[in-house]
Amino acid sequence: MYCAVNNKVMPVEEATISIRDLSILRGYGIFDFFRTDQGIPLFLDDHLARLSYSSNKVFPKASLDIKAVKDTVLRLMTYNNKPLSGIRIVRTGGVTPDGYEPGTPNLIITQEDISFPSDEKYKNGVKLISYEFQRELVEVKTISYMTGIWLQDRVHEAGAYDILYHQDKKVSELTRSNFFIVDNNETLITPAVNILKGVTRKKVIELAGKFMKVEEREITLREVSEAKETFLTGTTKRVLPVTQIDDSIIGNGKPGPKTKAIMEAFEKLENEYFDNNRKN
Amino acid sequence: MYCAVNNKVMPVEEATISIRDLSILRGYGIFDFFRTDQGIPLFLDDHLARLSYSSNKVFPKASLDIKAVKDTVLRLMTYNNKPLSGIRIVRTGGVTPDGYEPGTPNLIITQEDISFPSDEKYKNGVKLISYEFQRELVEVKTISYMTGIWLQDRVHEAGAYDILYHQDKKVSELTRSNFFIVDNNETLITPAVNILKGVTRKKVIELAGKFMKVEEREITLREVSEAKETFLTGTTKRVLPVTQIDDSIIGNGKPGPKTKAIMEAFEKLENEYFDNNRKN
Repeated sequence: MYCAVNNKVMPVEEATISIRDLSILRGYGIFDFFRTDQGIPLFLDDHLARLSYSSNKVFPKASLDIKAVKDTVLRLMTYNNKPLSGIRIVRTGGVTPDGYEPGTPNLIITQEDISFPSDEKYKNGVKLISYEFQRELVEVKTISYMTGIWLQDRVHEAGAYDILYHQDKKVSELTRSNFFIVDNNETLITPAVNILKGVTRKKVIELAGKFMKVEEREITLREVSEAKETFLTGTTKRVLPVTQIDDSIIGNGKPGPKTKAIMEAFEKLENEYFDNNRKN
Repeated sequence: MYCAVNNKVMPVEEATISIRDLSILRGYGIFDFFRTDQGIPLFLDDHLARLSYSSNKVFPKASLDIKAVKDTVLRLMTYNNKPLSGIRIVRTGGVTPDGYEPGTPNLIITQEDISFPSDEKYKNGVKLISYEFQRELVEVKTISYMTGIWLQDRVHEAGAYDILYHQDKKVSELTRSNFFIVDNNETLITPAVNILKGVTRKKVIELAGKFMKVEEREITLREVSEAKETFLTGTTKRVLPVTQIDDSIIGNGKPGPKTKAIMEAFEKLENEYFDNNRKN
C-alpha cells in the first residue's frame, strides 16, 4: 500500500518521520478519517472542511493547503486502487526544538483496510459500557486517544463493542463515534456540546429531521436508561443500533423502528452520493 | 547528538520510526525524563522505577527490560559526552495493525540540551495562570500534552511561566511540574491525588519533613490564594518560587523563607547525590 508524507507518495513500509516529531514526544497532532467506497471518497468535502477547522485550531500559524491535500488523496487512491478503504490524514506537531514547542507540521496520508461491523451487529445491536471521562480539546479531532485505547481490554472483558463517555451524569460520545437516543415522545436527541461533531452525525440529523423531531442538547444518564432506542454513528460504523449499556437493556432489547428508518435513510443517502460522484 | 531506537545507538538526524506507530496516529505512549548534571544521571533509579510503573500500566503485555534501558542510557552518555542534559525515554504504542490496536512498542532514548530558569526567576519567583483541566490517566507519565502545548500562546500572552490546572475548585499540578503551598500555620501542603507524582516532589516532601509539617491532601483554589508561599518542582526547574497566580499576588509577592529553605535543602541533596555517584 502507498501512503504520502508531506504530499510525496511512497510505500508505507518506507514511510517514517523523525523521532523528534511532537506527535511521538508529546502526542501533539490532529487528523481526519473518511471512507472510500466503490472507489469514491465519501463526504470528502465535509471531512476536508473539518480537517481545516482542526488544523486552524491547533496550528494557527501554519496554514494547511487543503487543495494539495485533496490532490494527494486522489493521487493516492489511483496508486492503491482499493475501492473500499479508510483514508487517514494526520498533521503532526513536527520536529520540536526543545521537546515541547511545535515545529513545522508533518502531513501524513495513509490508505487502510477497513471492515464494517458484522451483519449480526446491525441486526441485533451492540452493547456499550459507560465510563466517566471527558476528552480534551474535544471539538477538535486531535490524535489523543490514550484513555480509549487503554480501556480496550476492559471493553473486551465486558463483551462490549465500545465505551460511552459521560461526565457530571451527562453523556457525550463514544471513543470514536457519536451517540443518539430516541425518547418516549419519539424525539431523536443527540448531545450538543463536549463532543466531536462527526460527519455521519451531521448527515443523520439532517435526514431524520425530515420525518421526526430532532434535538441537539444535553442528555442525562437517566434519559439514556429510559430511552426507547439508542444508536451510534461513525465513518466505518454508519448507523449502528445500541441495545445494551452496562447492565441496562434499551427498550425491548432489539433495534427499534426509528433506528431502522434512519439506517435505511442513511444507506439511501450514501447510494445517492455514490451515484452523483461516480466517474463515467 | 546520538540517540537510541530500540537500544541501537545512532545519530538523532537519522533516527525515525514508521508513520504507522500508534504514538503518531493516536498519541499513545509513555515516557520519563531526567537530568544529567556534572555527567551524572540525577535520581536515575527513581526515574527508571517510574518508567517501569508507567510501562506496566499502559503496556501490561509487553514487559520492558529496565536493565537494558539503563545500559543504553549510560552508553548514550558516553557517546554524547554532554555533562548537563536531559535524557528522555519514550515507549510508543508501536506499529498498529488497524490504526487503533497497539503493536510492539518502540523504545526511543534521546539526550537533549536543557537550561534552568534564569537566576532572576529563582530570585523573584514566577507567575502562573490557572486553567480548569484534568489530565487523563494522570498517575501515568503518558505522552498526552495536547492541552498544555495548545495553551502555550495564552501563557506567553499573559506574561506567565506556566499553567496551574484545577478542577472542581481543587488544584492538581502544572503542565509538567508539581505544586506546593505553605499555609499560614507554616505547613507545607501538596496535592495527593489527580497528579503525576514527580521525583523532585518526592525528594522535597522527604527533605521538608525534617524541619516542617508536611501534608499530602486536597488544596482548594481559595487555600492557594490565601497561602503565604507557593512554589513548583520539576526535573529541569528544581524548586522554583511562584509569587503570582492570575491576578493574585502570593504572600508579599517575594519568595518566602520556607521556600528558600527548601531550595537550599534540595540543592544540598543534589550535591550529595553528585558526590556519592561521581566516578573516581
